[in-house]
Amino acid sequence: MKLSLIRNTCGILRGQRTGAAAVSLSKRCLPPGPSSSDLVLLRAASATSTGRSSAKVAFNLGKHPTKEGIFECDGSLREVVQNCNDAVAALQRKSSTIQPTLAIVQSSEDDRMWQINKKVAEMVGLNITQMCLSKDSTEDEVIVEILKLNEDPSVHGISLQLPPSFLSSRVVNTLRPEKDIDGLSDVNVGRLLRGDSERSFLPPAASAIIDLLENHYVPLEGKSVLLVGAEGPLIYSLHALIEKSGMEACKSHCNAKNLQRQVMQADAVVLLGEENVNVPSTWVRPGAAVIRENQMSILQGLGHLVAAYRIQNVIHSSSRWLQEQQHRPWSLRCLKLKPVTPVPSDIEISRAQTPKAVTMLAEEIGLLPEELEAYGRSKAKVRLSLLDRLQSQPDGNYVLVAGITPTPLGEGKSTVTIGLVQALSAHLKLNSFACLRQPSQGPTFGVKGGAAGGGYAQVIPMEEFNLHLTGDIHAITAANNLVAAAIDARMLHEATQSDKALYKRLVPSVNGVRKFSPIQISRLQRLGVHKTDPESLTPEEVSSFVRLDLDPNKITWHRVVDTNDRFLRKITVGQASTEKGQIRETGFDIAVASEIMAILALSNSLQDMRSRLARMVVGTSRSGCPVTSEDLGVSGALTVLMKDAIKPTLMQTLEGSPVFVHAGPFANIAHGNSSVLADKLALKLVGQDGFVVTEAGFGADIGMEKFFNIKCRTSGLKPNVVVLVATVRALKMHGGGPSVSAGAPLPKEYIDENLDLVAGGCYSNLRKQIQIIHQFGVPVVVAVNVFRTDTEAEVELVCQIARESGAADAVPCDHWAQGGRGSVELAKAVKEAASKPNHFKFLYDIEMPIVEKIRTIAQKVYGADDIELSAEAEAKINYYNQQGFGSLPICMAKTHLSLSHMPEKKGAPTGFVLPIRDVRASIGAGFIYPLVGTMSTMPGLPTRPCFYDIDIDPVTEEITGLF
Amino acid sequence: MKLSLIRNTCGILRGQRTGAAAVSLSKRCLPPGPSSSDLVLLRAASATSTGRSSAKVAFNLGKHPTKEGIFECDGSLREVVQNCNDAVAALQRKSSTIQPTLAIVQSSEDDRMWQINKKVAEMVGLNITQMCLSKDSTEDEVIVEILKLNEDPSVHGISLQLPPSFLSSRVVNTLRPEKDIDGLSDVNVGRLLRGDSERSFLPPAASAIIDLLENHYVPLEGKSVLLVGAEGPLIYSLHALIEKSGMEACKSHCNAKNLQRQVMQADAVVLLGEENVNVPSTWVRPGAAVIRENQMSILQGLGHLVAAYRIQNVIHSSSRWLQEQQHRPWSLRCLKLKPVTPVPSDIEISRAQTPKAVTMLAEEIGLLPEELEAYGRSKAKVRLSLLDRLQSQPDGNYVLVAGITPTPLGEGKSTVTIGLVQALSAHLKLNSFACLRQPSQGPTFGVKGGAAGGGYAQVIPMEEFNLHLTGDIHAITAANNLVAAAIDARMLHEATQSDKALYKRLVPSVNGVRKFSPIQISRLQRLGVHKTDPESLTPEEVSSFVRLDLDPNKITWHRVVDTNDRFLRKITVGQASTEKGQIRETGFDIAVASEIMAILALSNSLQDMRSRLARMVVGTSRSGCPVTSEDLGVSGALTVLMKDAIKPTLMQTLEGSPVFVHAGPFANIAHGNSSVLADKLALKLVGQDGFVVTEAGFGADIGMEKFFNIKCRTSGLKPNVVVLVATVRALKMHGGGPSVSAGAPLPKEYIDENLDLVAGGCYSNLRKQIQIIHQFGVPVVVAVNVFRTDTEAEVELVCQIARESGAADAVPCDHWAQGGRGSVELAKAVKEAASKPNHFKFLYDIEMPIVEKIRTIAQKVYGADDIELSAEAEAKINYYNQQGFGSLPICMAKTHLSLSHMPEKKGAPTGFVLPIRDVRASIGAGFIYPLVGTMSTMPGLPTRPCFYDIDIDPVTEEITGLF
Repeated sequence: MKLSLIRNTCGILRGQRTGAAAVSLSKRCLPPGPSSSDLVLLRAASATSTGRSSAKVAFNLGKHPTKEGIFECDGSLREVVQNCNDAVAALQRKSSTIQPTLAIVQSSEDDRMWQINKKVAEMVGLNITQMCLSKDSTEDEVIVEILKLNEDPSVHGISLQLPPSFLSSRVVNTLRPEKDIDGLSDVNVGRLLRGDSERSFLPPAASAIIDLLENHYVPLEGKSVLLVGAEGPLIYSLHALIEKSGMEACKSHCNAKNLQRQVMQADAVVLLGEENVNVPSTWVRPGAAVIRENQMSILQGLGHLVAAYRIQNVIHSSSRWLQEQQHRPWSLRCLKLKPVTPVPSDIEISRAQTPKAVTMLAEEIGLLPEELEAYGRSKAKVRLSLLDRLQSQPDGNYVLVAGITPTPLGEGKSTVTIGLVQALSAHLKLNSFACLRQPSQGPTFGVKGGAAGGGYAQVIPMEEFNLHLTGDIHAITAANNLVAAAIDARMLHEATQSDKALYKRLVPSVNGVRKFSPIQISRLQRLGVHKTDPESLTPEEVSSFVRLDLDPNKITWHRVVDTNDRFLRKITVGQASTEKGQIRETGFDIAVASEIMAILALSNSLQDMRSRLARMVVGTSRSGCPVTSEDLGVSGALTVLMKDAIKPTLMQTLEGSPVFVHAGPFANIAHGNSSVLADKLALKLVGQDGFVVTEAGFGADIGMEKFFNIKCRTSGLKPNVVVLVATVRALKMHGGGPSVSAGAPLPKEYIDENLDLVAGGCYSNLRKQIQIIHQFGVPVVVAVNVFRTDTEAEVELVCQIARESGAADAVPCDHWAQGGRGSVELAKAVKEAASKPNHFKFLYDIEMPIVEKIRTIAQKVYGADDIELSAEAEAKINYYNQQGFGSLPICMAKTHLSLSHMPEKKGAPTGFVLPIRDVRASIGAGFIYPLVGTMSTMPGLPTRPCFYDIDIDPVTEEITGLF
Repeated sequence: MKLSLIRNTCGILRGQRTGAAAVSLSKRCLPPGPSSSDLVLLRAASATSTGRSSAKVAFNLGKHPTKEGIFECDGSLREVVQNCNDAVAALQRKSSTIQPTLAIVQSSEDDRMWQINKKVAEMVGLNITQMCLSKDSTEDEVIVEILKLNEDPSVHGISLQLPPSFLSSRVVNTLRPEKDIDGLSDVNVGRLLRGDSERSFLPPAASAIIDLLENHYVPLEGKSVLLVGAEGPLIYSLHALIEKSGMEACKSHCNAKNLQRQVMQADAVVLLGEENVNVPSTWVRPGAAVIRENQMSILQGLGHLVAAYRIQNVIHSSSRWLQEQQHRPWSLRCLKLKPVTPVPSDIEISRAQTPKAVTMLAEEIGLLPEELEAYGRSKAKVRLSLLDRLQSQPDGNYVLVAGITPTPLGEGKSTVTIGLVQALSAHLKLNSFACLRQPSQGPTFGVKGGAAGGGYAQVIPMEEFNLHLTGDIHAITAANNLVAAAIDARMLHEATQSDKALYKRLVPSVNGVRKFSPIQISRLQRLGVHKTDPESLTPEEVSSFVRLDLDPNKITWHRVVDTNDRFLRKITVGQASTEKGQIRETGFDIAVASEIMAILALSNSLQDMRSRLARMVVGTSRSGCPVTSEDLGVSGALTVLMKDAIKPTLMQTLEGSPVFVHAGPFANIAHGNSSVLADKLALKLVGQDGFVVTEAGFGADIGMEKFFNIKCRTSGLKPNVVVLVATVRALKMHGGGPSVSAGAPLPKEYIDENLDLVAGGCYSNLRKQIQIIHQFGVPVVVAVNVFRTDTEAEVELVCQIARESGAADAVPCDHWAQGGRGSVELAKAVKEAASKPNHFKFLYDIEMPIVEKIRTIAQKVYGADDIELSAEAEAKINYYNQQGFGSLPICMAKTHLSLSHMPEKKGAPTGFVLPIRDVRASIGAGFIYPLVGTMSTMPGLPTRPCFYDIDIDPVTEEITGLF
């Protein structure tokens, strides 16, 4: 089935034998046989209903044709369609979910172009969508539509089927080059001409014209082609393509004086665009081809081939997109370190390095622009939609950095974490990510000590890391304190109003209609009242609905501030006369101690966070029932306040490797680990062979135990390796070294070589911690964080005993002074250990009774003989069991300074019974926390807080005195 | 003085008569006379020491030359240099500070290219800087340097003088196209070829070659040029240029089989790049030109001309940059509104509009990328460096929106502000900006009522506006509470330590050295102790240094939260045993009531904010001296906490016009206006004919009076027009209409036409407010914010009386239902009023005694007969005078519901005496605030706070129930 072209398309010959042309607009008429000698014909079959199609383009070329001059393009079309079919099939073998999609933006109501594209798209099995604009649309409106399509991840190509007057520079350059499958934008033209075929698109019409030429001439080489038409992407790319095929190309325009000479010299003439160039057939060399590319030729013949090439570009674009989604080694631009000796202050080192723009970093690690929300130039939030996009991507290796029991001498878990990632990414060139906790701002102004690492293993810019960051802790503060305000206001209103008045206000008549809000219906259902009409409640039901009846002495919810404000530890509120004597004692905690922080760290999704926030128990009613934030009606608002905080913040190390900073719950009353979501995102981003390194607070007995039993249980993730950080100095203290005090000079035991003390610490604390890790079935690598005063023999001894004690490996590292280069050996050891078999298991079954879970931890981890419960603890456990909270994991609140409950007992104490003073619960976060001793949840300021030294230069904006 | 080119540059003829070439490397040798027939010569004079230069390029062209074939290019060079000189002079007439600057990035130690560029730059008076990279630099290191230059606003052009191996796609495309003066990047190539000569750069070598051809052939038209060389930006742009000159261009490459034929046909042959193409002279047509462009030809002759064209590009770039700095009508992409009736909820309207990416908006209004810090996709902070850049730009028109005395029926100042800016920008196409206050988050969850405008006059996305925004209020909370924590901790430490112990801790010995921090030296100086050695203080000096000796009963500093938490209005702190009995009563305010908020709003720069934060008085010592935050040592840290908050946040209206959101101090205990800095930035951005519209809290008697007497005094800015907003309903209440209560149906007076009540309100309150404005010498336009129930006659009456009362104009507006279109008449009236003479003056002289200033406001603004001071107020005034705070402006804390101190007195009360209950001071913010009645600084939550309806869809992330 063929289609002959009406004559007025073929302006070349207009006026010559117009009457002779046997033309038809019917798409299904047969071609009129060999055409008469001076008529140019394009014959193309339309697609058949079965989805197959063929197209033929026939030319008569010049007055005295030397050959009959028919271009068959159905073969080309068949070939391109077949290629497309194969490519789509290959694509869908790679990903079952991908559906290559072309979006057509058109303005007129003329659907003919759309029909052609649609037909070919159907042959290929390509999605195609149409975006129709009214004829009087403004440029701005076109741009709005393009921007939407740019951002739509399901669209892989955008074709602007618009009149030329719409195709302004602004419009075509709004097209994202990655979706500009017609090759119109400046960037695409530049890429194409510079030879970047990987990232550019050939304009489909150019490809189609080359096809016609190829069908006409074999070989093409040495032939000369004259291009006539206005400047534009098409003519340039066609020019480039023609030259690439070995032909010679010359350009001209319709008013060129020497057009006749040029046409006469050419083996082929291509007339581009809508201008009616007058090229009499007498000019054309015998046998030479004349091709006209304009709307009519496209509509009636060439169009199917052009559409097929367009679709080929869309498939190419989809395939490129898919490739970008998949695991591949990043092309990470590493920042060069030039370590200086002696090592300058942390802020000096941080300031000396210019971080990459976070948008660049994001691109390097495979994030799409729409997945990123920049906060300034060096921080960005990453959207959780990434998890859906990378769903089928296998996770990378999951590495936990834990420490031996901490001493005032420090171990440097954060610097090891960052140094290790710097080594993995900048030196071993492996995709790797650090996931860190966000530090509280309180201590930043209290007692020195940043949390961004230190020396040449840091997160930069460190002042951004240590100050507001992206506002997550502020959001937690706002959410936490909204709950507190709601509690007290509710108690006041309940105390001063009748059931009826309360009900009238809680379920008011709006324009004569009373309605429960969804959150109120949820409360009614918990009360067992399954009614939705406010008028239908009995007085008893009204009463139980309106009265939370909170017991002022049993409110467990505290307010928080992110400031070290010791005077708020215990306060009395409600003393203004407006609060009508409803005073009560309460207190403020530091913001990171909020249960909402623990929830942020443990949530798997926005939905999950919403449910956890609703479950939070804020106190107990006078009748002994737990009262939740959902009962207060505030859980939706809390989720709204936390909607941005749930997205992890992307930053970078000093060497340019990616870092997620997200959540920083306390390590005693909470679980002390950064967020589940950051780890999940990072594991997808690094891909199968990559590494995600995260850190657990305190010693392995606390932070790591919680990481395994709480965080991994919640997330379902399995760790591959534990890095256990130790220092010679701290081991000496565990081995019996003297105690130290801040400010005083270090005792000589810590400065001079002392192998006995080192061995003592290794055989007690280090060995015990390794044994603890082994109970979880995960390989352990010991990292000895080397200080300048450590001797080679001391370091070697630690490594040797560590290996004896079952560590997969033990290596010294010197990232603080050297950056990633100082941790290369550690990185290699971690990589090796990650390849070993891994039999990860939890320490206890979640369904065990609470007491048994506590006992298991005390005995198997701390080395206690048994536990001893206070009467209060026992009562609470019974209460939690009765309320159905018995199946939660345990989050021990114990001193971090000893494996036991006695801070002064270093090494690996034995023969003790662990006293459980009290038991509390964070129901929203999802754990029970037994208290072993008193935990301060609000630090104070010393006499000379470090804010005395902190300032900013008002001109350079350089910060001084921050660490 | 000329330079002849050595033969091996001219690979064309290599091997043929090599011995005959009279060549010299000397730069000052004379040309060897007409060259022999088969030698290609480039002769160019180097720059003379006087800064002039000439260059000649001589060619012998083919074996049988028909003419002698010498290209003179010194004329061209002279001409280009002259053009550059003129352009630089013209540029510097426009801006005295601009200094066009070229940065050369080079890798080798070969300085020859640099010398050539430098020489020509000197001739032109262009700045030129050199960036040398070591030979073994990595691609990443090259990119780092380019990125730095991209961001350096003093560099207008970057030239990469690097070996080809360095010029990877990644490297050249890192160049910001606006600085890519060699035209290497993809975007530049695309722009150039598409014909965007405005925004692209011609590669300088291409320009130089065209020059040579022009010198050889007159006219150029019809000549054929063969380009031989590798694909790349140069060959494409040269090609385009040649065609533009009317010549024919053909490309070939050195291995082309038909090269000989091509050469023979060409009138000129251009050999590009380093390949040694063998073009025997026998191929060359007699008289045809052969030009070789490679490193040697550049170095030895062509280079000066190329450098001159490069410099021309730099000047072009500078000029473009300067033009972008200057006032011009923005090409703002307006967002189309399709208003629906009935008007949907605010959040539905907001959600239905897709905001422009804030980066796009920023570009549209002339911000440089480096001046923007995006916070997500729809908010961004703008850096203050903008003020320096636009220093010489005249300010736009400054419009204040104020209201009549507020009633519960509302006036809609915010919607008028936003509607007016929508009308000015989207409909009158004038550059215009709205400057708004950031709302407190507390009320968002308390009682309904957003601050983002409403209906079709809104800031979008409204949920971002009403929630955390960019964290400014959180920063204020953190800073405010750090001061509070510092106060209590200091009192505790002073109470529990001896002078000696305090001194030892405040000025500790670090590594054996004791030193005062700068902030401590500043305190010593205020104490009159001019010593810097800590050991040299007398015991008395130590004592006065270490003891702030704060009187617990005279601490004026409160803590703040951004939550409506009524139970914190009055509290007792310090009740934990760790605080050793140092309990005291205090309270929390809502965060926006913090003095730090007022400071943020009034600061003129970071330096100014730093000084104001230091001056804040937090309480009084037992000996009666004011104690400041500088005394506490915390002012530097506060500035660090506020370093980002000082940058205004850019957002947009529903129609895409720019909005600054910045600061939101209380309108009673503070001055109730958005920030000085936002207004200043906006006034520069809109430029001379533009408009900045801002809003003052409460009625004109309060917010506007403070705007003039406090804010304008601080900023030095002069307002051009006041828009006074009134509603028919509110005027009816002022005219004697019945009172209304929330929830109850409106009395019929407010629904039915009632011209008497309207007239009553107009002749009392409206007229009085107009008179108040006239005292400040600024024209006033009355905007009647029309409600659906208003009748035409009512609206007309308001307009008529307003004009009678002296308003420049009075117009109804309907932005709430129609967006900017509904405010076009208002916009025209404002534009007209702004063109009128303006005699702005303050109401009182700042040096008047405090009492006189208060009396002036009471009498001239409120219409009081006199004022009456309580004993406490009198004592405070004496104290402030004695402390040197007498010259501060006055910030009245009076009810906003009446011109008098009696909220129930509507209209324009007379015959009253204004009682001054107490007087307080915000020394850092810089005002004295007399209290007329009791001001609540902490709102509460009602029985059913609006958080009951607020929720988020966990999948779509759509927020519900927020207004």
